[in-house]
Amino acid sequence: MSQESLETIFRPKSIAILGASRDENKIGGRPLLYLKKYAFGGPIYPVNPNYPEVQGLKAYKSILDVTGEVDLALIVLPAAAVLQAIGECAEKGVNSVVIFSSGFAETGDEGNAAQLEMRRIADRAGMRIVGPNCMGIAAFDHNMIITFGVSMLNMPPVLGPVSIVSQSGAFGSVSYAEARQRHLGVRLWATTGNESDVNVADCLNYFVEDPETKVILMYFEASRDGAKLVAGLEAAKKARKPVVAMKVGSSKVGAEAALSHTNSLAGSDSVVDTVLKKYNAYRAETLDEFFDIGYAFTGGLFPAGNRLGIVTISGGVGILMSDYAAKLGLDVARLSDAAQAKVKDVIPFAGSRNPVDITGQAVNQPEILEHCLDIMIEEGEYDVIIVYFAGMTSLEFLQKAGLTRIREKHPTAAIIVSVAMEEETRELFDELNYLVIPDPTRAVRAAAAMMQLGQGYAKADLPAPPSIAAPVLAPAGMQNEVEAKRILAKAGVPVVDERLATTADEAAKAAAEIGFPVAMKLVSTDIPHKSEIGGVLLNVADHTAAWDGYDTLLARAKAAQPGAKVDGVVVAPMITGGVETILGVKVDPAFGSVVLFGLGGIFVEVLGDVTQRLAPFGVEEAHEMMREVKGFPLLDGARGAAPADVDALAEALSRLSVFAHENVGRIESIDINPFLVLPKGQGAFAVDALIIPCKQL
Amino acid sequence: MSQESLETIFRPKSIAILGASRDENKIGGRPLLYLKKYAFGGPIYPVNPNYPEVQGLKAYKSILDVTGEVDLALIVLPAAAVLQAIGECAEKGVNSVVIFSSGFAETGDEGNAAQLEMRRIADRAGMRIVGPNCMGIAAFDHNMIITFGVSMLNMPPVLGPVSIVSQSGAFGSVSYAEARQRHLGVRLWATTGNESDVNVADCLNYFVEDPETKVILMYFEASRDGAKLVAGLEAAKKARKPVVAMKVGSSKVGAEAALSHTNSLAGSDSVVDTVLKKYNAYRAETLDEFFDIGYAFTGGLFPAGNRLGIVTISGGVGILMSDYAAKLGLDVARLSDAAQAKVKDVIPFAGSRNPVDITGQAVNQPEILEHCLDIMIEEGEYDVIIVYFAGMTSLEFLQKAGLTRIREKHPTAAIIVSVAMEEETRELFDELNYLVIPDPTRAVRAAAAMMQLGQGYAKADLPAPPSIAAPVLAPAGMQNEVEAKRILAKAGVPVVDERLATTADEAAKAAAEIGFPVAMKLVSTDIPHKSEIGGVLLNVADHTAAWDGYDTLLARAKAAQPGAKVDGVVVAPMITGGVETILGVKVDPAFGSVVLFGLGGIFVEVLGDVTQRLAPFGVEEAHEMMREVKGFPLLDGARGAAPADVDALAEALSRLSVFAHENVGRIESIDINPFLVLPKGQGAFAVDALIIPCKQL
Repeated sequence: MSQESLETIFRPKSIAILGASRDENKIGGRPLLYLKKYAFGGPIYPVNPNYPEVQGLKAYKSILDVTGEVDLALIVLPAAAVLQAIGECAEKGVNSVVIFSSGFAETGDEGNAAQLEMRRIADRAGMRIVGPNCMGIAAFDHNMIITFGVSMLNMPPVLGPVSIVSQSGAFGSVSYAEARQRHLGVRLWATTGNESDVNVADCLNYFVEDPETKVILMYFEASRDGAKLVAGLEAAKKARKPVVAMKVGSSKVGAEAALSHTNSLAGSDSVVDTVLKKYNAYRAETLDEFFDIGYAFTGGLFPAGNRLGIVTISGGVGILMSDYAAKLGLDVARLSDAAQAKVKDVIPFAGSRNPVDITGQAVNQPEILEHCLDIMIEEGEYDVIIVYFAGMTSLEFLQKAGLTRIREKHPTAAIIVSVAMEEETRELFDELNYLVIPDPTRAVRAAAAMMQLGQGYAKADLPAPPSIAAPVLAPAGMQNEVEAKRILAKAGVPVVDERLATTADEAAKAAAEIGFPVAMKLVSTDIPHKSEIGGVLLNVADHTAAWDGYDTLLARAKAAQPGAKVDGVVVAPMITGGVETILGVKVDPAFGSVVLFGLGGIFVEVLGDVTQRLAPFGVEEAHEMMREVKGFPLLDGARGAAPADVDALAEALSRLSVFAHENVGRIESIDINPFLVLPKGQGAFAVDALIIPCKQL
Repeated sequence: MSQESLETIFRPKSIAILGASRDENKIGGRPLLYLKKYAFGGPIYPVNPNYPEVQGLKAYKSILDVTGEVDLALIVLPAAAVLQAIGECAEKGVNSVVIFSSGFAETGDEGNAAQLEMRRIADRAGMRIVGPNCMGIAAFDHNMIITFGVSMLNMPPVLGPVSIVSQSGAFGSVSYAEARQRHLGVRLWATTGNESDVNVADCLNYFVEDPETKVILMYFEASRDGAKLVAGLEAAKKARKPVVAMKVGSSKVGAEAALSHTNSLAGSDSVVDTVLKKYNAYRAETLDEFFDIGYAFTGGLFPAGNRLGIVTISGGVGILMSDYAAKLGLDVARLSDAAQAKVKDVIPFAGSRNPVDITGQAVNQPEILEHCLDIMIEEGEYDVIIVYFAGMTSLEFLQKAGLTRIREKHPTAAIIVSVAMEEETRELFDELNYLVIPDPTRAVRAAAAMMQLGQGYAKADLPAPPSIAAPVLAPAGMQNEVEAKRILAKAGVPVVDERLATTADEAAKAAAEIGFPVAMKLVSTDIPHKSEIGGVLLNVADHTAAWDGYDTLLARAKAAQPGAKVDGVVVAPMITGGVETILGVKVDPAFGSVVLFGLGGIFVEVLGDVTQRLAPFGVEEAHEMMREVKGFPLLDGARGAAPADVDALAEALSRLSVFAHENVGRIESIDINPFLVLPKGQGAFAVDALIIPCKQL
C-alpha cells in the first residue's frame, strides 16, 4: 500500500458515518458533532437505518444509498455488524475506513479471525483501515475530527507544529488534552488501535512528510513493522523532525496488558530502545517527560554541546539543578573569571561561578536578572541557559527584568524560563520564543534532551557496513562446534587455530602440529554441555597424553550418553591471557538480526552487562558498541593490563553482523562464547561457537 | 544547648525587629506586616533609630530601650551592624535571635570570623541564633511569621500536618508556595541559612517532638551535626513521622555551589544516603518528588507489602503504569480468576488481570468504576490501588462513579486517585481521604514510596552490634602489614595464618611449619606498593626456595629503595579458591566511622560496586550490606561455584565496624584487600591490610 493512500485518511473529501447517532454525546454521535462544529469542508453522510435525519443531516439507510462519492467511512457499529459494513464500503468504492468498534483481535482467536477477514475484504478493494478498537483520527488543518473522545470539545484545537500518533485510543485522547494544557499546538492526530492495517509507523512516515509538522509524539505498544518504523525514524532524523517516543510493555505485566489491550506482542524492549537511539529519537518514560520534551523540541533549537548555564534566584534550587544536570551528563561549566567579575559588579554577593545566584535581591532590583543573563549569554558559550525564579511571577516583574530586551538582543539563544506565571504572561513568552518549564529539574531534563538531539544531529552518519561480494550462507541443519567455526571463519570472523581428530592418532598428530600444551574437546551436537560430562581436557602436555586423551573423551561421552553421535575431538592450542568476550546474534521478529556484545566471566551472566545493534553495521558502530558496556575498561587496559586488540574485535563484530543479516530466515541465533581478545596487535578469535538454524531449514 | 530552647524560637512570647522598616515590602518591613496581619499574640517591638513609629507601632531607638521582655529578636541590618546588635540583644537578655543579614561565612574568611564572633557572644549569653543568611521562621499555629518572602502574603497559610525545614532560604520559600499549591497544610517552617547555631537537625528534632506535625520535609546542603541528624531521624522513625529529605550538593558543581551559598561542605553524599536509608527517610531528587511524596505521606497509610492494584480508563496508561511499577520493584499482582470473572460480569471487554482496564465504556456508565474498584479492594489484597481517569473529570461523574460510597465501605483502603479535577472537587476528595495525584507515573511513584516506608516501619529493628568487654585500641603511628593484621585479629577480624621472618633461616622454618607451597612478601612501611618492586613471591615450593626467597626479597628492596626500613618477610600459605572481597573503613567528618564493602577484582575498581554502613553494626546488618552489591551472586554460588562462607564474612564486617567505632580519632582509614572468603564452613580472612592512623596520633 502506498504512503499516498494515507492522504485520503487524513484529508478526506467526504465522510460517511456508519452508526451515526442522534445523541451528540454517544460514541456514534460525537464525531458528527465535531465535523459540524469545526466546519468540515466536504459532504458528511450519516448512515442509520432507523432515522431519516441525524443531527440535522439527511441520514441514509445504507452507505450504498449514498449518491455522492465517499472518501472515508467511519464505522461505529457493534463488532458483529462490522464485517458486513466493510463489505458495503468496499462495494461503494470507499478509499478508507476508520473503525471504532472493539471486540476483535484483542479478545482472542475468534476476534482475530474476524479482523483478518476484514483486512482481506479491504485489501481486495484497495481500501485502507484504521483500527479496529481505535479512537479515530484528526487533521486540525483540515477541520477533520472523527473521535468519540471528549477532550477536543472541552479544549478546542489550537493549530500547531506537533503531530501525535498513539496506538492506544485513550492514551491518544489524554495526549491531546495534555498537549493543549501544556501550550502544544497539535496538527495531525491519530490512534491506531489493533492496527489491522494502518499502524503507528505508517503515521510516523506520513507525519514526517507533512511539511508543517515539526515535532512528532508517538506512543506504541508494539512495532508490527520494524522496517517501516526504521524508515520513518530515519526520514525524521534526516528531516530534523524530532520524535518523542513512548514505548510501553517493557515489564512482564505491561507486556501481558498490551496483549489484551490492542493484541500487541510487545517484543524485545531493548531492541526497540536500540532502534530509537540509533535514529536520534527521544524515548520518554513518564507523561511529564513525554510532553515536556515534546514541548521543548517545538523551540527548534538543538545545540550540539553539553554546556548548561543556570541563573537562579534560589541558591538551593541552583544546587539542585546542578546535581541533576551532572547526573544527566551535562557540564555546568564555570564562567570565566572576567565574566564572574562582571556578575560581581552587578551584584556583589552573587554566586558567580555558574549557577549564577542572583539572590532575593533580584526581587527588589529586577534589572539584576537582565544584566546577569546578558553576561551569561555573551560570555558563557552555553548551549542552553535556564533562568529559575521562585513562586508565581508577575508580567510586570518579568518585563522590568528585561526579558523582552534580552530576546531582541539574542533572538536565537536557547533559554528555558523556569518560572511559574499567569496564562497571559505565558502567551507573551510563547511569542518571545522562550521555553517555559516552571519545574526546575524538569527544565534541566528538557535542556539535556535538546542537547542530546543536537549531538545526534551533529554526528556524522556512520559509514555503511562492509559490502560482501559473495555472502556466506549457513547450511541447513545443526552444525557441530567445528563446522560452526568454519562457517564463521568464512564469513570473516576469526576463529582459533584448531583441528578435528577422529582417531587417537590424528589427535596426537594434530597436537604436535599445534604445539603442546593443547586443549581437547569432544565434538558432538548431541552433547551441548560438554564440560559438564568432563568433555574438555586442558593443558594436555605431550604426545601420549593427547593419544590417551582422545580415548578418555570418547569413553566419557559413551558413559554419559550412550547413543550420542560423536563427530570426534577437536584439538586447539592452550591460550593464556586476553580478555574473554561474548558475541551473539538473535533475531527480533520486528527488526531482524540483532548482534549482542558483552564481556565474559561475570559481566554477562551476573551483571547482565550487554549491548546490541541491529545488523548489519560497520567497524565504527562496533567500536561505539563496545564502549557502551560497563566492563569496557577491561578492554582498554584497566588495572594495569595491556590494552586489548579492540580493532580486531570491532572487525569481527562487523563481519558477524553482515553474516547475520545475510542469513535472516536461516539462522535463529549465534553464540560465540568465549571470543578471546588478545593484546593490541595480536588479534582476537572465537574459541567456541554455536549456530542454531531456523527450525524450518 | 537544650532542645527546649527552640521553643522560644518557634513560640516566642514577644518579638523585637532590629531594622524594622516602614515600607511593608522591604526586607525589614515585611516581617512586621506578617505579624500584624496574622495577629501575633504578643508584644512586637520595632527597633529603628530614625522614626518614632513604624507601621503604626511605637519604634525604639535601640533594643535596650524596650521596657518589656524580649523573647526573640529579628535582626535585619547590614552585615557590618550585626555584631553590635547581637551584643545589645545579649545585654537585653533576649532568648534567641533570627538573622536575615548575609555577608558572613558564605563570603570567605573575614565573614566567617564575624560569624564565629557572633556565636561566641550568643553562647556567653545563652542565646540561640537562627541564621545568618536565612529567610526566617514561622509557626502558623502561633500566628508567628517572620520572613521577607512574599509567598505567605500571596497564599495565606492553611494549617496542616506538614512542617518544613530548609537550609536554603529561597528554597524554603519555594517549598511553602509549592506545598500550598499542592494541598499540603503547613505547621512549622524554618530556614537555617549559614547555621551559625541552629541547624536543620535541630529543627528536625523539634518537629518530631511537636505533637501535631505528622510529616517532615527537610532540605539541606550539608549536615553540620551528624549525630543530631541521626538522633532526629531515629526519633522520627520511632514516632512514625515520615521524613522526606532533599539533600543537594551530590555533584562536584553542586558541592562548590553549596560552599558559596551557605558555607556548606556537602560532605560524602553516599554517607548521607546511607543514613537516610537506615532511618527510613525518603530521599527525593526533584521538586515534584519532594512534594508528591510529602503529600502522599500525609495520608498516614504505610502498607508493608508491595502489591499495586490499577484501575484505568486507558489501557495504554495502565501499561505505562505497570512498566513504571515494575521498575520500582512493585508487584502488579494478578487478580484471582474468581475476581476476574466478577470484573468480566461488570464489563465483558475489560482487561481484568490487573491493570483492570474499564475502557471508555466507563464514561457512559460511571458505575463500572465503582464496581471494579470494589472488586479490586475486596479481592485483590492490594497494598495500594491507583484509579486512573483521563482528562479533567467532573464532580458529577465522580459522584456517579460511587467514590463516596467506596470510601464509606472501605474507610482505610489506600487509594490514589490519578484524576485531574477542579479545585472544589479536589477539596471534597481531600475530605474523603483520597490521595489525588493526577499524573499516573507520579501516582505510581507515590504508591511505591508509601510501601517503601511501610516496609521500613514493619521491619524489626536490627540487633545491636556486639558489645566488646575490652575494646581494642590501635597503637599510635604507622604499623606494618603484619602488625596491622595482628591488631585486626585481636579485634576479631580473622587474618591469614602467617609468620614474620627476619632471617632466611626463620623464613624457611616458617614455610615448613605452614606447609609448602607458600607465599612470601616484603614487610616495610616505607614500601607501600611492594608488588611493583617484585616484593611478593608466590608458590614458593620448598625449603631452599624459601631460604633463597628471603634474600631475593631483601635484595630487591635494597635495589629499589636503598634507605627503606625493612621489617622482614612474611610467610603465608598459598590459598586457591575463595572469593576476593575488599573491606574498608573511612571516617566521615559528620557521621564518624563508615565501613565499606565490595567484591575484589573488577567490582570495586572498574564498576565502583561498593556499599557502606555507619559503624558499629551487628552481623544482620552486615548480611544486608553484602546483599546490596551487584556482585553478590558470586558469594551466593553463581556460575556453579560453591556458596561462600558469608557468615564468616558478616562476622568480620561487624567486628571491623566495632573496632572502627572504638577507634574514631585514632584511625583515619583501614583497607583490607583482599579479604578472602572461602566456601561455606571454611571461614574467611584478611590476606593484606593497611591501617592509616590519624595524623595527630
